[in-house]
Amino acid sequence: MAERIDGKKVSGAVLEECRAEIARLDGQGKKPGLAVVLVGSDPASQVYVGSKERTCTDLGMHSKKLEFPADMSQEDLLQAVADLNADPAIHGILVQSPLPKHLDEGLVVRAIDPAKDVDGFHPENVAKLALEDTSGFVPCTPLGCQRLLEAYDISPQGKHVVIVGRSLIVGKSLALLLMAKGEWANATVTVAHSRTTDLPSVTRQADILVAAVGVPEMIKAEHVRDGAVVIDVGVNRVDDPSKKRGYRLCGDVDFAEVEPLASAITPVPGGVGPMTIAMLMRNTVKACDQSG
Amino acid sequence: MAERIDGKKVSGAVLEECRAEIARLDGQGKKPGLAVVLVGSDPASQVYVGSKERTCTDLGMHSKKLEFPADMSQEDLLQAVADLNADPAIHGILVQSPLPKHLDEGLVVRAIDPAKDVDGFHPENVAKLALEDTSGFVPCTPLGCQRLLEAYDISPQGKHVVIVGRSLIVGKSLALLLMAKGEWANATVTVAHSRTTDLPSVTRQADILVAAVGVPEMIKAEHVRDGAVVIDVGVNRVDDPSKKRGYRLCGDVDFAEVEPLASAITPVPGGVGPMTIAMLMRNTVKACDQSG
Repeated sequence: MAERIDGKKVSGAVLEECRAEIARLDGQGKKPGLAVVLVGSDPASQVYVGSKERTCTDLGMHSKKLEFPADMSQEDLLQAVADLNADPAIHGILVQSPLPKHLDEGLVVRAIDPAKDVDGFHPENVAKLALEDTSGFVPCTPLGCQRLLEAYDISPQGKHVVIVGRSLIVGKSLALLLMAKGEWANATVTVAHSRTTDLPSVTRQADILVAAVGVPEMIKAEHVRDGAVVIDVGVNRVDDPSKKRGYRLCGDVDFAEVEPLASAITPVPGGVGPMTIAMLMRNTVKACDQSG
Repeated sequence: MAERIDGKKVSGAVLEECRAEIARLDGQGKKPGLAVVLVGSDPASQVYVGSKERTCTDLGMHSKKLEFPADMSQEDLLQAVADLNADPAIHGILVQSPLPKHLDEGLVVRAIDPAKDVDGFHPENVAKLALEDTSGFVPCTPLGCQRLLEAYDISPQGKHVVIVGRSLIVGKSLALLLMAKGEWANATVTVAHSRTTDLPSVTRQADILVAAVGVPEMIKAEHVRDGAVVIDVGVNRVDDPSKKRGYRLCGDVDFAEVEPLASAITPVPGGVGPMTIAMLMRNTVKACDQSG
Protein backbone atom coordinates (compact mmCIF):
# COMPACT_ATOMS: atom_id res chain seq x y z
CA MET A 1 0.00 0.00 0.00
CA ALA A 2 1.36 3.34 -1.05
CA GLU A 3 1.87 6.18 1.34
CA ARG A 4 -0.73 8.87 0.71
CA ILE A 5 0.89 12.20 0.00
CA ASP A 6 -1.37 14.58 1.85
CA GLY A 7 -1.50 17.88 -0.03
CA LYS A 8 -3.86 19.40 2.50
CA LYS A 9 -1.39 18.83 5.31
CA VAL A 10 1.61 20.10 3.35
CA SER A 11 -0.23 23.12 2.00
CA GLY A 12 -1.23 23.89 5.59
CA ALA A 13 2.44 23.89 6.57
CA VAL A 14 3.27 26.20 3.63
CA LEU A 15 0.55 28.60 4.75
CA GLU A 16 1.96 28.56 8.29
CA GLU A 17 5.35 29.50 6.80
CA CYS A 18 3.62 32.33 4.97
CA ARG A 19 2.05 33.47 8.23
CA ALA A 20 5.47 33.68 9.89
CA GLU A 21 6.90 35.57 6.91
CA ILE A 22 3.96 37.97 6.93
CA ALA A 23 4.60 38.69 10.62
CA ARG A 24 8.28 39.37 9.84
CA LEU A 25 7.35 41.68 6.94
CA ASP A 26 4.86 43.46 9.20
CA GLY A 27 7.85 44.42 11.37
CA GLN A 28 9.26 46.16 8.28
CA GLY A 29 5.97 47.94 7.64
CA LYS A 30 5.16 45.70 4.65
CA LYS A 31 1.94 43.81 4.00
CA PRO A 32 1.72 41.45 1.02
CA GLY A 33 -1.14 42.22 -1.34
CA LEU A 34 -2.60 40.01 -4.08
CA ALA A 35 -4.89 41.26 -6.83
CA VAL A 36 -7.02 38.78 -8.75
CA VAL A 37 -8.61 39.84 -12.01
CA LEU A 38 -11.70 37.95 -13.11
CA VAL A 39 -13.25 38.52 -16.52
CA GLY A 40 -16.70 37.03 -17.14
CA SER A 41 -18.62 34.68 -14.89
CA ASP A 42 -17.18 31.20 -15.38
CA PRO A 43 -18.44 29.34 -12.27
CA ALA A 44 -15.22 27.34 -11.76
CA SER A 45 -13.15 30.53 -12.01
CA GLN A 46 -15.37 32.19 -9.43
CA VAL A 47 -14.80 29.29 -7.05
CA TYR A 48 -11.00 29.53 -7.50
CA VAL A 49 -10.97 33.29 -7.09
CA GLY A 50 -13.15 33.10 -3.99
CA SER A 51 -10.83 30.54 -2.44
CA LYS A 52 -7.77 32.71 -3.17
CA GLU A 53 -9.44 35.70 -1.57
CA ARG A 54 -10.40 33.76 1.56
CA THR A 55 -6.87 32.40 1.94
CA CYS A 56 -5.44 35.94 1.68
CA THR A 57 -7.83 37.23 4.30
CA ASP A 58 -7.15 34.31 6.60
CA LEU A 59 -3.39 35.00 6.41
CA GLY A 60 -3.85 38.70 7.08
CA MET A 61 -2.78 39.66 3.56
CA HIS A 62 -4.26 42.45 1.55
CA SER A 63 -6.42 41.21 -1.29
CA LYS A 64 -8.20 42.91 -4.12
CA LYS A 65 -10.68 41.39 -6.55
CA LEU A 66 -11.42 43.09 -9.85
CA GLU A 67 -14.42 41.73 -11.72
CA PHE A 68 -15.20 42.66 -15.30
CA PRO A 69 -17.92 41.66 -17.74
CA ALA A 70 -17.11 39.00 -20.35
CA ASP A 71 -17.31 41.57 -23.16
CA MET A 72 -14.72 43.98 -21.70
CA SER A 73 -12.22 45.36 -24.18
CA GLN A 74 -8.57 44.35 -24.42
CA GLU A 75 -7.66 47.99 -23.84
CA ASP A 76 -9.61 48.18 -20.58
CA LEU A 77 -8.04 44.96 -19.34
CA LEU A 78 -4.53 46.22 -20.13
CA GLN A 79 -5.37 49.47 -18.32
CA ALA A 80 -6.54 47.52 -15.25
CA VAL A 81 -3.25 45.58 -15.25
CA ALA A 82 -1.28 48.83 -15.62
CA ASP A 83 -3.12 50.30 -12.63
CA LEU A 84 -2.28 47.24 -10.53
CA ASN A 85 1.36 47.43 -11.66
CA ALA A 86 1.43 50.99 -10.32
CA ASP A 87 -0.37 50.20 -7.04
CA PRO A 88 2.20 49.96 -4.22
CA ALA A 89 -0.22 47.94 -2.04
CA ILE A 90 -0.30 45.15 -4.64
CA HIS A 91 2.68 42.75 -4.88
CA GLY A 92 1.10 39.94 -6.84
CA ILE A 93 -1.22 40.09 -9.84
CA LEU A 94 -3.13 37.11 -11.15
CA VAL A 95 -5.39 37.24 -14.17
CA GLN A 96 -7.71 34.25 -13.84
CA SER A 97 -7.58 31.85 -16.78
CA PRO A 98 -9.33 31.19 -19.14
CA LEU A 99 -10.09 34.62 -20.58
CA PRO A 100 -12.92 35.15 -23.07
CA LYS A 101 -11.70 34.37 -26.60
CA HIS A 102 -11.54 37.96 -27.86
CA LEU A 103 -8.87 38.80 -25.28
CA ASP A 104 -5.19 38.00 -25.99
CA GLU A 105 -3.96 36.08 -22.94
CA GLY A 106 -0.31 36.28 -24.02
CA LEU A 107 -0.46 40.04 -24.34
CA VAL A 108 -2.14 40.38 -20.95
CA VAL A 109 0.50 38.20 -19.25
CA ARG A 110 3.27 40.30 -20.84
CA ALA A 111 1.60 43.45 -19.52
CA ILE A 112 2.00 42.32 -15.89
CA ASP A 113 5.09 43.69 -14.15
CA PRO A 114 7.38 40.60 -13.95
CA ALA A 115 8.11 41.50 -10.32
CA LYS A 116 4.38 41.05 -9.59
CA ASP A 117 3.85 38.02 -11.86
CA VAL A 118 3.19 35.51 -9.06
CA ASP A 119 1.79 33.00 -11.56
CA GLY A 120 5.24 32.82 -13.19
CA PHE A 121 3.89 32.97 -16.76
CA HIS A 122 5.61 36.21 -17.87
CA PRO A 123 8.46 35.54 -20.35
CA GLU A 124 10.88 37.18 -17.92
CA ASN A 125 10.02 34.55 -15.29
CA VAL A 126 9.96 31.70 -17.79
CA ALA A 127 13.50 32.70 -18.76
CA LYS A 128 14.63 32.98 -15.14
CA LEU A 129 13.47 29.42 -14.53
CA ALA A 130 15.54 28.19 -17.49
CA LEU A 131 18.47 30.35 -16.35
CA GLU A 132 18.16 29.02 -12.76
CA ASP A 133 17.80 32.59 -11.49
CA THR A 134 15.92 32.13 -8.22
CA SER A 135 14.77 35.75 -8.07
CA GLY A 136 12.03 34.81 -10.56
CA PHE A 137 8.62 33.30 -9.94
CA VAL A 138 8.05 29.64 -10.74
CA PRO A 139 4.49 28.60 -11.73
CA CYS A 140 2.57 27.49 -8.64
CA THR A 141 1.68 23.93 -9.63
CA PRO A 142 5.23 22.74 -10.46
CA LEU A 143 6.46 24.52 -7.34
CA GLY A 144 3.78 22.69 -5.36
CA CYS A 145 4.88 19.32 -6.80
CA GLN A 146 8.48 19.99 -5.78
CA ARG A 147 7.35 20.99 -2.31
CA LEU A 148 5.35 17.77 -1.87
CA LEU A 149 8.49 15.76 -2.64
CA GLU A 150 10.44 17.82 -0.11
CA ALA A 151 7.77 17.44 2.56
CA TYR A 152 7.87 13.65 2.22
CA ASP A 153 11.67 13.62 2.01
CA ILE A 154 11.57 12.11 -1.48
CA SER A 155 14.75 13.50 -2.99
CA PRO A 156 14.72 13.83 -6.78
CA GLN A 157 18.55 14.04 -6.85
CA GLY A 158 19.90 11.66 -9.46
CA LYS A 159 16.47 10.03 -9.72
CA HIS A 160 14.62 9.56 -12.97
CA VAL A 161 11.57 11.80 -13.08
CA VAL A 162 9.20 11.15 -15.97
CA ILE A 163 6.66 13.88 -16.64
CA VAL A 164 3.72 13.10 -18.92
CA GLY A 165 2.56 16.37 -20.48
CA ARG A 166 4.50 19.22 -22.08
CA SER A 167 2.43 22.29 -21.19
CA LEU A 168 4.38 25.35 -20.14
CA ILE A 169 2.23 25.72 -17.01
CA VAL A 170 3.12 22.29 -15.68
CA GLY A 171 5.19 19.87 -17.76
CA LYS A 172 7.97 22.04 -19.18
CA SER A 173 8.23 24.21 -16.09
CA LEU A 174 8.46 21.22 -13.77
CA ALA A 175 11.08 19.69 -16.07
CA LEU A 176 13.22 22.84 -15.89
CA LEU A 177 12.71 23.08 -12.12
CA LEU A 178 13.72 19.49 -11.38
CA MET A 179 16.66 19.31 -13.83
CA ALA A 180 18.21 22.47 -12.33
CA LYS A 181 21.11 22.35 -9.92
CA GLY A 182 19.85 22.26 -6.35
CA GLU A 183 19.01 20.16 -3.34
CA TRP A 184 15.41 19.36 -4.33
CA ALA A 185 16.31 19.12 -8.00
CA ASN A 186 19.29 17.55 -9.87
CA ALA A 187 16.96 14.96 -11.35
CA THR A 188 17.27 13.14 -14.64
CA VAL A 189 14.11 14.37 -16.34
CA THR A 190 12.08 12.91 -19.19
CA VAL A 191 9.16 14.74 -20.77
CA ALA A 192 6.71 12.45 -22.54
CA HIS A 193 3.47 13.47 -24.24
CA SER A 194 0.76 12.55 -26.72
CA ARG A 195 3.34 11.86 -29.46
CA THR A 196 5.47 9.54 -27.34
CA THR A 197 5.87 6.06 -28.81
CA ASP A 198 5.14 3.25 -26.34
CA LEU A 199 4.35 5.46 -23.37
CA PRO A 200 4.21 2.62 -20.81
CA SER A 201 7.82 1.64 -21.54
CA VAL A 202 8.89 5.25 -20.96
CA THR A 203 6.86 5.85 -17.81
CA ARG A 204 7.98 2.54 -16.30
CA GLN A 205 11.49 4.04 -16.19
CA ALA A 206 10.29 6.58 -13.63
CA ASP A 207 11.39 6.63 -10.03
CA ILE A 208 9.02 9.59 -9.78
CA LEU A 209 6.14 9.74 -12.26
CA VAL A 210 4.22 12.98 -12.78
CA ALA A 211 0.97 12.96 -14.75
CA ALA A 212 -0.07 16.32 -16.17
CA VAL A 213 -2.08 15.64 -19.29
CA GLY A 214 -5.71 16.31 -18.42
CA VAL A 215 -6.97 12.91 -19.55
CA PRO A 216 -9.04 11.16 -16.86
CA GLU A 217 -7.34 8.09 -15.38
CA MET A 218 -5.11 7.42 -18.39
CA ILE A 219 -2.15 6.30 -16.26
CA LYS A 220 -2.78 2.64 -15.51
CA ALA A 221 -0.88 -0.11 -13.72
CA GLU A 222 1.07 -0.92 -16.90
CA HIS A 223 2.58 2.59 -16.82
CA VAL A 224 4.03 2.32 -13.34
CA ARG A 225 7.08 0.54 -12.02
CA ASP A 226 6.78 -1.19 -8.68
CA GLY A 227 7.74 1.24 -5.92
CA ALA A 228 7.51 4.43 -7.97
CA VAL A 229 6.35 7.71 -6.48
CA VAL A 230 3.29 8.97 -8.38
CA ILE A 231 2.28 12.64 -8.51
CA ASP A 232 -1.07 13.31 -10.15
CA VAL A 233 -1.53 16.88 -11.39
CA GLY A 234 -4.75 16.18 -13.28
CA VAL A 235 -8.11 17.46 -12.12
CA ASN A 236 -10.84 16.11 -14.37
CA ARG A 237 -14.61 16.01 -14.08
CA VAL A 238 -16.23 12.81 -15.18
CA ASP A 239 -19.95 12.17 -15.33
CA ASP A 240 -21.24 10.26 -12.35
CA PRO A 241 -25.04 10.02 -12.04
CA SER A 242 -24.64 8.51 -8.55
CA LYS A 243 -23.36 11.89 -7.31
CA LYS A 244 -25.77 14.65 -6.45
CA ARG A 245 -23.86 17.16 -8.60
CA GLY A 246 -23.74 14.67 -11.48
CA TYR A 247 -19.95 14.32 -11.69
CA ARG A 248 -16.94 13.24 -9.71
CA LEU A 249 -13.41 14.63 -9.72
CA CYS A 250 -10.56 12.38 -10.77
CA GLY A 251 -6.95 12.71 -11.73
CA ASP A 252 -4.90 11.59 -14.72
CA VAL A 253 -3.97 8.47 -12.76
CA ASP A 254 -6.23 5.47 -12.29
CA PHE A 255 -5.81 5.56 -8.53
CA ALA A 256 -7.37 2.16 -7.83
CA GLU A 257 -5.04 0.41 -10.30
CA VAL A 258 -1.86 2.36 -9.54
CA GLU A 259 -2.03 2.80 -5.78
CA PRO A 260 -1.11 -0.83 -4.95
CA LEU A 261 2.08 -0.49 -7.04
CA ALA A 262 3.30 2.92 -5.92
CA SER A 263 5.45 3.59 -2.87
CA ALA A 264 3.75 6.98 -2.46
CA ILE A 265 0.94 8.67 -4.36
CA THR A 266 -1.08 11.88 -4.36
CA PRO A 267 -4.87 11.52 -4.27
CA VAL A 268 -7.25 13.68 -6.32
CA PRO A 269 -8.64 15.76 -4.75
CA GLY A 270 -6.35 16.56 -1.81
CA GLY A 271 -2.98 16.05 -3.47
CA VAL A 272 -1.42 18.64 -5.77
CA GLY A 273 -4.56 20.81 -5.85
CA PRO A 274 -4.25 22.44 -2.44
CA MET A 275 -0.53 23.08 -3.09
CA THR A 276 -1.20 25.38 -6.03
CA ILE A 277 -3.00 27.99 -3.98
CA ALA A 278 -0.50 27.69 -1.12
CA MET A 279 2.42 28.32 -3.51
CA LEU A 280 0.55 31.32 -4.93
CA MET A 281 0.52 32.79 -1.43
CA ARG A 282 4.20 31.87 -1.05
CA ASN A 283 5.02 33.67 -4.32
CA THR A 284 3.04 36.74 -3.25
CA VAL A 285 4.89 36.90 0.07
CA LYS A 286 8.19 36.57 -1.85
CA ALA A 287 7.14 39.35 -4.22
CA CYS A 288 6.39 41.61 -1.25
CA ASP A 289 9.70 40.70 0.37
CA GLN A 290 11.60 41.53 -2.84
CA SER A 291 9.71 44.80 -3.37
CA GLY A 292 11.57 48.05 -2.82
CA MET B 1 29.16 0.73 -39.88
CA ALA B 2 27.36 3.92 -39.02
CA GLU B 3 26.49 6.52 -41.58
CA ARG B 4 28.69 9.57 -41.09
CA ILE B 5 26.64 12.70 -40.58
CA ASP B 6 28.59 15.25 -42.57
CA GLY B 7 28.28 18.65 -40.88
CA LYS B 8 30.42 20.30 -43.51
CA LYS B 9 28.08 19.24 -46.27
CA VAL B 10 24.91 20.20 -44.40
CA SER B 11 26.34 23.53 -43.24
CA GLY B 12 27.24 24.23 -46.86
CA ALA B 13 23.61 23.67 -47.84
CA VAL B 14 22.48 26.02 -45.06
CA LEU B 15 24.86 28.69 -46.30
CA GLU B 16 23.48 28.25 -49.83
CA GLU B 17 20.00 28.82 -48.39
CA CYS B 18 21.33 31.97 -46.74
CA ARG B 19 22.75 33.10 -50.06
CA ALA B 20 19.34 32.75 -51.72
CA GLU B 21 17.66 34.61 -48.87
CA ILE B 22 20.26 37.38 -49.05
CA ALA B 23 19.55 37.78 -52.77
CA ARG B 24 15.82 37.98 -52.02
CA LEU B 25 16.41 40.57 -49.27
CA ASP B 26 18.65 42.53 -51.63
CA GLY B 27 15.59 42.94 -53.85
CA GLN B 28 13.93 44.66 -50.89
CA GLY B 29 16.94 46.91 -50.36
CA LYS B 30 18.02 44.98 -47.25
CA LYS B 31 21.46 43.59 -46.48
CA PRO B 32 21.98 41.46 -43.36
CA GLY B 33 24.70 42.76 -41.06
CA LEU B 34 26.42 40.92 -38.20
CA ALA B 35 28.49 42.63 -35.53
CA VAL B 36 30.92 40.58 -33.46
CA VAL B 37 32.35 42.04 -30.28
CA LEU B 38 35.65 40.66 -29.06
CA VAL B 39 37.09 41.64 -25.69
CA GLY B 40 40.69 40.66 -25.00
CA SER B 41 42.93 38.46 -27.10
CA ASP B 42 41.98 34.85 -26.39
CA PRO B 43 43.48 32.98 -29.38
CA ALA B 44 40.56 30.55 -29.77
CA SER B 45 38.07 33.43 -29.71
CA GLN B 46 40.08 35.23 -32.38
CA VAL B 47 39.91 32.15 -34.59
CA TYR B 48 36.12 31.90 -34.15
CA VAL B 49 35.57 35.59 -34.79
CA GLY B 50 37.80 35.51 -37.89
CA SER B 51 35.85 32.58 -39.26
CA LYS B 52 32.51 34.34 -38.67
CA GLU B 53 33.78 37.44 -40.45
CA ARG B 54 35.02 35.46 -43.46
CA THR B 55 31.69 33.62 -43.75
CA CYS B 56 29.81 36.93 -43.70
CA THR B 57 32.04 38.38 -46.41
CA ASP B 58 31.75 35.26 -48.51
CA LEU B 59 27.94 35.44 -48.35
CA GLY B 60 27.91 39.12 -49.26
CA MET B 61 26.70 40.13 -45.80
CA HIS B 62 27.78 43.23 -43.97
CA SER B 63 30.08 42.46 -41.05
CA LYS B 64 31.58 44.55 -38.34
CA LYS B 65 34.21 43.53 -35.82
CA LEU B 66 34.70 45.52 -32.63
CA GLU B 67 37.84 44.68 -30.69
CA PHE B 68 38.45 45.92 -27.18
CA PRO B 69 41.29 45.45 -24.68
CA ALA B 70 40.80 42.88 -21.91
CA ASP B 71 40.64 45.60 -19.29
CA MET B 72 37.77 47.56 -20.86
CA SER B 73 35.08 48.74 -18.47
CA GLN B 74 31.61 47.26 -18.18
CA GLU B 75 30.22 50.69 -18.97
CA ASP B 76 32.16 50.96 -22.23
CA LEU B 77 31.04 47.48 -23.28
CA LEU B 78 27.39 48.29 -22.56
CA GLN B 79 27.81 51.51 -24.56
CA ALA B 80 29.25 49.56 -27.51
CA VAL B 81 26.24 47.21 -27.40
CA ALA B 82 23.84 50.18 -27.21
CA ASP B 83 25.50 51.70 -30.30
CA LEU B 84 25.08 48.43 -32.21
CA ASN B 85 21.43 48.20 -31.09
CA ALA B 86 20.92 51.64 -32.63
CA ASP B 87 22.83 50.88 -35.85
CA PRO B 88 20.33 50.14 -38.66
CA ALA B 89 23.03 48.35 -40.71
CA ILE B 90 23.43 45.74 -37.96
CA HIS B 91 20.81 42.99 -37.57
CA GLY B 92 22.73 40.53 -35.43
CA ILE B 93 25.00 41.16 -32.44
CA LEU B 94 27.28 38.55 -30.96
CA VAL B 95 29.48 39.18 -27.96
CA GLN B 96 32.18 36.52 -28.11
CA SER B 97 32.34 34.29 -25.03
CA PRO B 98 34.16 34.02 -22.63
CA LEU B 99 34.43 37.59 -21.39
CA PRO B 100 37.15 38.65 -18.95
CA LYS B 101 36.01 37.95 -15.38
CA HIS B 102 35.37 41.56 -14.35
CA LEU B 103 32.64 41.86 -16.97
CA ASP B 104 29.13 40.62 -16.22
CA GLU B 105 28.16 38.37 -19.14
CA GLY B 106 24.51 38.13 -18.06
CA LEU B 107 24.17 41.90 -17.98
CA VAL B 108 25.79 42.25 -21.40
CA VAL B 109 23.48 39.64 -22.94
CA ARG B 110 20.45 41.44 -21.48
CA ALA B 111 21.70 44.71 -22.99
CA ILE B 112 21.46 43.32 -26.53
CA ASP B 113 18.23 44.15 -28.36
CA PRO B 114 16.37 40.77 -28.35
CA ALA B 115 15.54 41.35 -32.03
CA LYS B 116 19.32 41.36 -32.73
CA ASP B 117 20.23 38.56 -30.31
CA VAL B 118 21.22 36.00 -32.95
CA ASP B 119 22.94 33.86 -30.29
CA GLY B 120 19.54 33.32 -28.65
CA PHE B 121 20.83 33.86 -25.11
CA HIS B 122 18.69 36.90 -24.20
CA PRO B 123 15.95 36.00 -21.67
CA GLU B 124 13.34 37.15 -24.17
CA ASN B 125 14.55 34.53 -26.65
CA VAL B 126 14.99 31.86 -23.98
CA ALA B 127 11.34 32.43 -23.04
CA LYS B 128 10.20 32.35 -26.68
CA LEU B 129 11.84 28.95 -27.08
CA ALA B 130 9.93 27.62 -24.05
CA LEU B 131 6.74 29.29 -25.30
CA GLU B 132 7.22 27.82 -28.81
CA ASP B 133 7.13 31.32 -30.29
CA THR B 134 9.05 30.92 -33.53
CA SER B 135 9.72 34.64 -33.91
CA GLY B 136 12.55 34.23 -31.39
CA PHE B 137 16.15 33.14 -31.92
CA VAL B 138 17.19 29.65 -30.89
CA PRO B 139 20.84 29.15 -29.86
CA CYS B 140 22.91 28.12 -32.88
CA THR B 141 24.26 24.78 -31.67
CA PRO B 142 20.88 23.18 -30.77
CA LEU B 143 19.45 24.59 -33.99
CA GLY B 144 22.37 23.00 -35.86
CA CYS B 145 21.71 19.63 -34.22
CA GLN B 146 18.06 19.75 -35.26
CA ARG B 147 19.06 20.67 -38.79
CA LEU B 148 21.47 17.73 -39.04
CA LEU B 149 18.62 15.37 -38.16
CA GLU B 150 16.43 16.99 -40.79
CA ALA B 151 19.14 16.82 -43.46
CA TYR B 152 19.53 13.08 -42.88
CA ASP B 153 15.77 12.56 -42.66
CA ILE B 154 16.04 11.30 -39.08
CA SER B 155 12.69 12.33 -37.65
CA PRO B 156 12.66 12.89 -33.89
CA GLN B 157 8.84 12.58 -33.83
CA GLY B 158 7.82 10.21 -31.07
CA LYS B 159 11.42 9.07 -30.72
CA HIS B 160 13.29 9.05 -27.45
CA VAL B 161 16.03 11.68 -27.48
CA VAL B 162 18.45 11.51 -24.57
CA ILE B 163 20.61 14.59 -24.07
CA VAL B 164 23.61 14.35 -21.76
CA GLY B 165 24.34 17.81 -20.38
CA ARG B 166 22.02 20.47 -18.97
CA SER B 167 23.68 23.74 -20.03
CA LEU B 168 21.35 26.44 -21.26
CA ILE B 169 23.43 26.91 -24.41
CA VAL B 170 23.01 23.32 -25.54
CA GLY B 171 21.27 20.77 -23.32
CA LYS B 172 18.23 22.64 -22.02
CA SER B 173 17.69 24.57 -25.24
CA LEU B 174 17.87 21.44 -27.39
CA ALA B 175 15.47 19.72 -24.98
CA LEU B 176 12.93 22.54 -25.34
CA LEU B 177 13.42 22.62 -29.11
CA LEU B 178 12.88 18.89 -29.63
CA MET B 179 9.99 18.47 -27.17
CA ALA B 180 8.04 21.30 -28.84
CA LYS B 181 5.20 20.65 -31.22
CA GLY B 182 6.47 20.53 -34.77
CA GLU B 183 7.61 18.41 -37.66
CA TRP B 184 11.27 18.14 -36.65
CA ALA B 185 10.38 18.00 -32.97
CA ASN B 186 7.62 16.14 -31.01
CA ALA B 187 10.28 13.98 -29.37
CA THR B 188 10.18 12.33 -25.98
CA VAL B 189 13.15 14.06 -24.38
CA THR B 190 15.33 13.06 -21.44
CA VAL B 191 17.99 15.35 -19.99
CA ALA B 192 20.71 13.51 -18.10
CA HIS B 193 23.79 15.06 -16.49
CA SER B 194 26.58 14.65 -13.96
CA ARG B 195 24.12 13.78 -11.18
CA THR B 196 22.31 11.08 -13.13
CA THR B 197 22.36 7.68 -11.45
CA ASP B 198 23.47 4.84 -13.76
CA LEU B 199 23.97 6.97 -16.87
CA PRO B 200 24.48 4.01 -19.25
CA SER B 201 21.03 2.61 -18.45
CA VAL B 202 19.51 6.00 -19.24
CA THR B 203 21.46 6.69 -22.43
CA ARG B 204 20.77 3.17 -23.73
CA GLN B 205 17.09 4.18 -23.93
CA ALA B 206 17.96 6.69 -26.63
CA ASP B 207 16.87 6.39 -30.23
CA ILE B 208 18.85 9.61 -30.65
CA LEU B 209 21.68 10.29 -28.19
CA VAL B 210 23.16 13.79 -27.88
CA ALA B 211 26.37 14.31 -25.91
CA ALA B 212 26.96 17.86 -24.69
CA VAL B 213 29.01 17.63 -21.54
CA GLY B 214 32.53 18.73 -22.45
CA VAL B 215 34.22 15.59 -21.13
CA PRO B 216 36.51 13.97 -23.72
CA GLU B 217 35.25 10.63 -25.01
CA MET B 218 33.11 9.85 -21.96
CA ILE B 219 30.33 8.22 -24.01
CA LYS B 220 31.43 4.63 -24.54
CA ALA B 221 29.93 1.56 -26.18
CA GLU B 222 28.10 0.70 -22.94
CA HIS B 223 26.12 3.96 -23.22
CA VAL B 224 24.74 3.28 -26.68
CA ARG B 225 21.97 1.04 -27.88
CA ASP B 226 22.50 -0.82 -31.12
CA GLY B 227 21.25 1.30 -34.01
CA ALA B 228 21.05 4.59 -32.15
CA VAL B 229 21.78 7.92 -33.84
CA VAL B 230 24.64 9.69 -32.03
CA ILE B 231 25.16 13.45 -32.12
CA ASP B 232 28.39 14.66 -30.52
CA VAL B 233 28.37 18.32 -29.51
CA GLY B 234 31.64 18.15 -27.57
CA VAL B 235 34.81 19.81 -28.81
CA ASN B 236 37.67 18.97 -26.48
CA ARG B 237 41.41 19.36 -26.75
CA VAL B 238 43.42 16.44 -25.45
CA ASP B 239 47.20 16.32 -25.27
CA ASP B 240 48.75 14.45 -28.15
CA PRO B 241 52.54 14.70 -28.45
CA SER B 242 52.37 12.96 -31.83
CA LYS B 243 50.66 16.06 -33.25
CA LYS B 244 52.69 19.07 -34.29
CA ARG B 245 50.45 21.42 -32.29
CA GLY B 246 50.64 19.11 -29.26
CA TYR B 247 46.94 18.25 -29.04
CA ARG B 248 44.12 16.68 -30.94
CA LEU B 249 40.43 17.57 -31.03
CA CYS B 250 37.91 15.04 -29.86
CA GLY B 251 34.25 14.94 -28.92
CA ASP B 252 32.37 13.73 -25.87
CA VAL B 253 31.87 10.42 -27.65
CA ASP B 254 34.50 7.72 -27.94
CA PHE B 255 34.12 7.52 -31.69
CA ALA B 256 36.11 4.32 -32.19
CA GLU B 257 34.02 2.42 -29.62
CA VAL B 258 30.61 3.87 -30.49
CA GLU B 259 30.75 4.12 -34.27
CA PRO B 260 30.30 0.36 -34.88
CA LEU B 261 27.09 0.40 -32.80
CA ALA B 262 25.44 3.54 -34.13
CA SER B 263 23.23 3.74 -37.20
CA ALA B 264 24.46 7.29 -37.81
CA ILE B 265 27.03 9.45 -36.01
CA THR B 266 28.61 12.89 -36.21
CA PRO B 267 32.41 13.04 -36.28
CA VAL B 268 34.49 15.62 -34.37
CA PRO B 269 35.61 17.76 -36.07
CA GLY B 270 33.26 18.08 -39.06
CA GLY B 271 29.96 17.22 -37.37
CA VAL B 272 28.08 19.71 -35.22
CA GLY B 273 30.91 22.29 -35.26
CA PRO B 274 30.38 23.67 -38.79
CA MET B 275 26.62 23.83 -38.16
CA THR B 276 26.96 26.36 -35.36
CA ILE B 277 28.39 29.09 -37.56
CA ALA B 278 25.97 28.28 -40.40
CA MET B 279 23.00 28.66 -38.06
CA LEU B 280 24.44 31.96 -36.82
CA MET B 281 24.29 33.21 -40.40
CA ARG B 282 20.76 31.79 -40.72
CA ASN B 283 19.70 33.64 -37.57
CA THR B 284 21.26 36.89 -38.82
CA VAL B 285 19.43 36.61 -42.13
CA LYS B 286 16.19 35.94 -40.19
CA ALA B 287 16.84 39.00 -37.99
CA CYS B 288 17.31 41.13 -41.10
CA ASP B 289 14.16 39.69 -42.66
CA GLN B 290 12.15 40.45 -39.49
CA SER B 291 13.58 43.99 -39.17
CA GLY B 292 11.29 46.90 -39.92
